[in-house]
Amino acid sequence: MCAEGFFPALTAGGRKAAIDANKKMIDETAELGAPLLVLVCGAQPGLALTESRQQIQEGIAAILPHAEACGIQLGIEPLHPMYADSRSAINTLEQANDLAEEMHSDFLGVVYDVYHLWWDPRLRSETARCASGGNLLAFHVCDWKTPTEDLLLDRGLMGEGCIDLHQIRGWVEDGGYKGFIEVEIFSKKYWAMDQYVFLDLIMAAYRSHV
Amino acid sequence: MCAEGFFPALTAGGRKAAIDANKKMIDETAELGAPLLVLVCGAQPGLALTESRQQIQEGIAAILPHAEACGIQLGIEPLHPMYADSRSAINTLEQANDLAEEMHSDFLGVVYDVYHLWWDPRLRSETARCASGGNLLAFHVCDWKTPTEDLLLDRGLMGEGCIDLHQIRGWVEDGGYKGFIEVEIFSKKYWAMDQYVFLDLIMAAYRSHV
Repeated sequence: MCAEGFFPALTAGGRKAAIDANKKMIDETAELGAPLLVLVCGAQPGLALTESRQQIQEGIAAILPHAEACGIQLGIEPLHPMYADSRSAINTLEQANDLAEEMHSDFLGVVYDVYHLWWDPRLRSETARCASGGNLLAFHVCDWKTPTEDLLLDRGLMGEGCIDLHQIRGWVEDGGYKGFIEVEIFSKKYWAMDQYVFLDLIMAAYRSHV
Repeated sequence: MCAEGFFPALTAGGRKAAIDANKKMIDETAELGAPLLVLVCGAQPGLALTESRQQIQEGIAAILPHAEACGIQLGIEPLHPMYADSRSAINTLEQANDLAEEMHSDFLGVVYDVYHLWWDPRLRSETARCASGGNLLAFHVCDWKTPTEDLLLDRGLMGEGCIDLHQIRGWVEDGGYKGFIEVEIFSKKYWAMDQYVFLDLIMAAYRSHV
């Protein structure tokens, strides 16, 4: 289930509303029988990133007992630094690993999307740390196109861009990850086409490039 | 003077052409009496980032003696991770600091643009390292708008976005930087307006927010 989060807010009331919304989303995730709630952690243009990061940690700490009680895993998804203004102040795998390790729980881990992480010079070592530590809960693939024409909705099919998916999948699986590999392609272009054709393209791209 | 660089290429001929172009640009920089050539280091969608980074280091090593002979400083500019596909494989201040320190020269340093670096969780410590080590050669300001509508040409005036310029300027100057603070705003919107009006806006924004 994706996505709640968005913990940072300019007021205490806003932070409490986010915590309540996340608890409700945990309930809904449990009701659906889904195992995992993906957290897009949030950021506020008017808040310093250090403050947003603190509020994210406090927000997760506030909902984690409810997730544990419901048997739902929470996955911290680091987002690409181009989303640091308003979508997430957690922008590297290292930050997500730090949070998951510090707040250690069987019901807290990391959601790993190549689109957000591929550029990171520390990716190999942080992937090993995440996967071998048991914190890698989900693995998402797509590709980064050149040129990218929209900050949110111009992801590419696997193989259409510059991400070395074989290499990254190798790192993830070398660390012991055995879960699903999920395809996540936010794209105005692909969403506009016949979705059965799109599905065929996804399957072909997956077989060749993942 | 800005910008050459673009060292990574798919062929040896391409890499040699980049080195020749950079040497010519060093000559032109000297002819103009400018002290500094800014290096946008380059990236190639078909090359792994680790390989691009190696080629960047080799390219800089190949032109550095010419820069030293001409009395021109070279400034490695780390670019935002959203440009890692085709503009630069150097995406954090830490990477630029590593390169500048490893290839130590009075004629090699780092160009620091808040637009590229503001999101980095290591920014404070890497800024101190860069400035106090004498490697901070230029300091550029603008702002990151919410929403940002174009990956290249939608920068904001200082104060229009989420970057804490007072804080970053403090870190830069605490490290001993005494050079110019340059305003660099790539923007379709601002480039379309009367440039004298734009200059007035820049001066007002600088006084209030830098």
